[in-house]
Amino acid sequence: MAKKSLPLSRVYRLLEPGPVVLVTTVLRGRANIMTMSWHTMIDFEPPIVGCVISDRNYSFSALKSTRECVINIPTVELSAQVVGCGNTSERRMDKFKVFHLTAAPASSVRPPLIAERYPNLECKVVDTKMVARYSLFVLEVLKAWIDLSESTPGQCVIWAGAPS
Amino acid sequence: MAKKSLPLSRVYRLLEPGPVVLVTTVLRGRANIMTMSWHTMIDFEPPIVGCVISDRNYSFSALKSTRECVINIPTVELSAQVVGCGNTSERRMDKFKVFHLTAAPASSVRPPLIAERYPNLECKVVDTKMVARYSLFVLEVLKAWIDLSESTPGQCVIWAGAPS
Repeated sequence: MAKKSLPLSRVYRLLEPGPVVLVTTVLRGRANIMTMSWHTMIDFEPPIVGCVISDRNYSFSALKSTRECVINIPTVELSAQVVGCGNTSERRMDKFKVFHLTAAPASSVRPPLIAERYPNLECKVVDTKMVARYSLFVLEVLKAWIDLSESTPGQCVIWAGAPS
Repeated sequence: MAKKSLPLSRVYRLLEPGPVVLVTTVLRGRANIMTMSWHTMIDFEPPIVGCVISDRNYSFSALKSTRECVINIPTVELSAQVVGCGNTSERRMDKFKVFHLTAAPASSVRPPLIAERYPNLECKVVDTKMVARYSLFVLEVLKAWIDLSESTPGQCVIWAGAPS
């Protein structure tokens, strides 16, 4: 077995690939978008999702106080916008405008869907017990949307880089 | 916006793709392998990982009682074995033998590494507070291995099927 030890600081690059998603939230009337890759399914139906959002993100405050978000699952053609949303702060810009994304009203939560051909999951926070220690929110998906024109949506899996 | 509502029972197919991993555990002296796709990074360093393992899996009992596992991250050439391990029960077979995988000793836990060119993460359970409600184990990665011959390991991302 020819293997070498990998520094523990690089482990996340092995586990975090895709699907990278865009999370929309609303705080004080303003919609925000953040790129997220630290999430997992927890249960099938109702669909329960766990997601880790650092308290350094603007979306952390929005999600913690409003307890609502939309998870938007980008198709691969939109990877440039996904990377852009991930490398910029929502404190300083309107990401919908900068990245030419369209907000559309959700049916059961206040944050908007991203109207482009993404699937969208309308979510509410159902458990915050792991937020203080792990920044881990437990979400229930209330409503899910997929594009009518696309029966097999591609997944935008962004490979974070080779461990070395 | 031309979208249709997706049944909530199919939401998991949107979020669960890759990297699909193989988890090795040991129970009563016998090593087991299970295929897992419900996991997330929780912190960078030390690397903390959350993973959801149903209590219907043999590996659930092993992980709960021994508090140790190895997460093996398959390269794409081994996708047939990954699917095979996911579709069979370790109660009834020796998966190492059936799927021609090689066990190698880990450095800090009892479950074996899968010696093939996978990266391997030796893990211990550090928090079980979410196990009863969500089957969610919090793991700390103690040691990580990558293959010497492969500087950019491919990820075996298994697309669970098109939502329809």
